Amino acid sequence: MKKVGKQTFNIKGDVFINDIFTIVGKKEGEGPLKDNFDLIVEDDLWGEDTWEKCELKFQKEAVKHLMDRNGLSKDGIDLLISGDLLNQIASSSFAARDLQLPYVGVYGACSTMALTLGLGALIIDGGFADNIMCVTSSHFCSAERQYRLPLEMGGQRHMSAQWTVTGSAAVWLSKSGQGPRIKNVTFGKITDLGVKDANNMGAAMAPAAYDSLKQHMDDTGIDYDLIVTGDLGTVGKSIVNKMFNENGKSIEDKYDDCGTIIYDIEKQDVHAGGSGCGCSATVLGAFLYKKLLNNEINKLLFTSTGALHSPTATLQGESIPGIAHCIGIEM
Amino acid sequence: MKKVGKQTFNIKGDVFINDIFTIVGKKEGEGPLKDNFDLIVEDDLWGEDTWEKCELKFQKEAVKHLMDRNGLSKDGIDLLISGDLLNQIASSSFAARDLQLPYVGVYGACSTMALTLGLGALIIDGGFADNIMCVTSSHFCSAERQYRLPLEMGGQRHMSAQWTVTGSAAVWLSKSGQGPRIKNVTFGKITDLGVKDANNMGAAMAPAAYDSLKQHMDDTGIDYDLIVTGDLGTVGKSIVNKMFNENGKSIEDKYDDCGTIIYDIEKQDVHAGGSGCGCSATVLGAFLYKKLLNNEINKLLFTSTGALHSPTATLQGESIPGIAHCIGIEM
Repeated sequence: MKKVGKQTFNIKGDVFINDIFTIVGKKEGEGPLKDNFDLIVEDDLWGEDTWEKCELKFQKEAVKHLMDRNGLSKDGIDLLISGDLLNQIASSSFAARDLQLPYVGVYGACSTMALTLGLGALIIDGGFADNIMCVTSSHFCSAERQYRLPLEMGGQRHMSAQWTVTGSAAVWLSKSGQGPRIKNVTFGKITDLGVKDANNMGAAMAPAAYDSLKQHMDDTGIDYDLIVTGDLGTVGKSIVNKMFNENGKSIEDKYDDCGTIIYDIEKQDVHAGGSGCGCSATVLGAFLYKKLLNNEINKLLFTSTGALHSPTATLQGESIPGIAHCIGIEM
Repeated sequence: MKKVGKQTFNIKGDVFINDIFTIVGKKEGEGPLKDNFDLIVEDDLWGEDTWEKCELKFQKEAVKHLMDRNGLSKDGIDLLISGDLLNQIASSSFAARDLQLPYVGVYGACSTMALTLGLGALIIDGGFADNIMCVTSSHFCSAERQYRLPLEMGGQRHMSAQWTVTGSAAVWLSKSGQGPRIKNVTFGKITDLGVKDANNMGAAMAPAAYDSLKQHMDDTGIDYDLIVTGDLGTVGKSIVNKMFNENGKSIEDKYDDCGTIIYDIEKQDVHAGGSGCGCSATVLGAFLYKKLLNNEINKLLFTSTGALHSPTATLQGESIPGIAHCIGIEM
């Protein structure tokens, strides 16, 4: 069986991350990675009449641009795997309708980018597909009104709250090609230490990130050049560091979090940092992937983190379960 | 590549459906399959204080019973793949938290059972896992209040409306074992002919069912003994028959729909029949799987159908996209 350790699937053949196309909104386009995104959309509606329709346009355009840039046709793509934060993963479903590709919808909240990459890698390495599109998105406005409060209310934001990234990335996984390859995949277990505060997702997700990261490193024994989590922000990142330090295995010198990379946290008024499916997705495409291509790093442990927050369950007294999926990538 | 035709993944090795455990509610337990379910729960709360918590208990108990009946331990299960109808697939996420298994969450509305089986089959045949749990659920009360109207309102139901099945099935897929095997998997494309009526899901899903069924049969050329769709009900089933007849390839003599199998449509006041993720899941476990085991049929084309209905998108003027995933099973 192609499995190492307890919980990690080992990719024996080649699964290349052949190309990634990123689209972000205005705020992300003013952040530290502004010169690295493929497309920056200044208008939060992008010509649509609702934020939800704008978000699905992000997904659709990301895939179309990726196909155009690489001369790919629909017939050459075996599968589309996508998901997002909205109820019924509406952005993904409607984008899939317009793209007319065989479609697998997933839900992993902000862990979606790693979840789609993991499934895609397994399906290609299993010999079933040559080319798979892995896609996710989030939009500040559609997420905020679904999960928290109407934006029109203008409520005060908590200091532990994060800013949902408006953005989408489409990743082209392929059996043949060039560039970084996915080598190991760990699908996480849910960890829930009882956080009930929808304004502190970093704390809700951090224990899951620790659990999956530790499991992946124990399983593979690989010494990564860079370890990144998806969207823990400043609060969650410090908890992960603390958990590793307390267990005598500090990762501080090579660990970062996409939620702290995508914005200038001091100047952009984002409080604890970025979040949302689009956070780790666009940082992977615009920043981490390029570090691999430029040989700045050779081994990347990319770990998207998800708070499986159900507003209904929270109203019923439940806490917020966290999950993290790890993708080991090597140049 | 292990692919036949345009869109169908071919399972070369053995992927056995080793066992299925089904749990249903009172109404389903009074229907034609009443003697076939593993467990019937009379109380729509099952001792919990909300319908949502009851639904996650259905999932959790289905998996636990399945593990107990087969002497399976957590360590022997490589992956849990599950999804449901609730926002953030809350039943699946909370059940996964309590089960503490590596977890892949999917969203395919009522197509979920086939979606999880398809992914599970690919992952096992790809050499990554020996044992996978595929699980889904739905609950009449939690679905009705999320997608339509408060039950307390006592609104009149449309004649084209279907009754969401209260039920869950857990399926144990395995590399080794006995019984029926999954042989071919077709993940569907989205088909949307513009139906906007949340009380006529059968019509919204039928064109997708036709598209995937036709594609699967064209790809594989297999002459199935029985073809079943997931939850088209009487309205959708007649549309599928009409579409095949109009194209000169009638399947009427060997085609049925789980939504018309699970209830006595005349006597149980369910209007157009059953629906929900639990519909095709429990009919597979309690009825179709047993037909295969008893050699009443040898080749089954199991096709769960999903209406990717987003209430938010509907309010914004959008239609309801349909999808169908096909699982070719042989004894």
